[in-house]
Amino acid sequence: MTIKRHEPSKIYSKAVEANSFVFTAGIVADDTAQDVKGQTQQILKEIDRLLKLAGTDKSKVVSATIWLADIRTRDAMNEAWSAWTTGQNLPGRACIEAKLADPRMLVEIAVVAAK
Amino acid sequence: MTIKRHEPSKIYSKAVEANSFVFTAGIVADDTAQDVKGQTQQILKEIDRLLKLAGTDKSKVVSATIWLADIRTRDAMNEAWSAWTTGQNLPGRACIEAKLADPRMLVEIAVVAAK
Amino acid sequence: MTIKRHEPSKIYSKAVEANSFVFTAGIVADDTAQDVKGQTQQILKEIDRLLKLAGTDKSKVVSATIWLADIRTRDAMNEAWSAWTTGQNLPGRACIEAKLADPRMLVEIAVVAAK
Repeated sequence: MTIKRHEPSKIYSKAVEANSFVFTAGIVADDTAQDVKGQTQQILKEIDRLLKLAGTDKSKVVSATIWLADIRTRDAMNEAWSAWTTGQNLPGRACIEAKLADPRMLVEIAVVAAK
Repeated sequence: MTIKRHEPSKIYSKAVEANSFVFTAGIVADDTAQDVKGQTQQILKEIDRLLKLAGTDKSKVVSATIWLADIRTRDAMNEAWSAWTTGQNLPGRACIEAKLADPRMLVEIAVVAAK
Repeated sequence: MTIKRHEPSKIYSKAVEANSFVFTAGIVADDTAQDVKGQTQQILKEIDRLLKLAGTDKSKVVSATIWLADIRTRDAMNEAWSAWTTGQNLPGRACIEAKLADPRMLVEIAVVAAK
């Protein structure tokens, strides 16, 4: 069994591979001046990058957890989400409201992918 | 490695199989007129159905996340939970409060099962 | 495929092994009179114990979810976290705010480890 840790910061790794799965951290947007749709687009682009680093891609995402700072922004988040999934390869998903590390962060997404 | 996606909607799959695990979406009740115990019963019945579709069953659930709209309803939710688990095959479990997609939804449950 | 359940209570198991992964429950502190740093230290010590029971250890943690009763206590929690990880073997991690089962509980942590 081998564990590969990608882009560790001081407190977490952005993605970790083990036993044919990849676990991302909860990813937030770099540019938090954007609205929830824009932040979601940034996050999903970053998740694409991390999955590629870990040898997989969005077609193999099996589970996603989405935390929204305001659950009423679910539709706006879903616009970016649906553009990303294109209705294909849809993971199991939970979407709930939670206060995030910084009030400017409007959405945070963690995924599990197979590889 | 094969991924099987069960009952995809427009935005997520209700359950996904990969690498000997099954990941359900966060499941909510269809009839949100019921109280938290009734909603939990509905959800667990739906999880039974999804696990069966995916070739496994509740005896193989390894992890569960339960979001309650009001954490003070934990005991009522647990009545339905304990009837379902019958004290056997208990998964790792986290139960926290979160605002859900619709205020009538009182509980949401996602599980991971082995198969 | 074998599932091993460690220390089942009435409603959940503290840790479950399946398919080369270990899933802990959401662990909270026993002594909730302590502050968030002290509670985090207790939780991580308990997670060490559970991982050992399940035949693995903190060097193999791949994913962690941390719920804080008050997200503003993130830095205090991270002091205990960083002492535990020692900057090594960092998992993917999500840290969000959530109301927990008892108002004296300030932090709850669940991890997934490979083995």
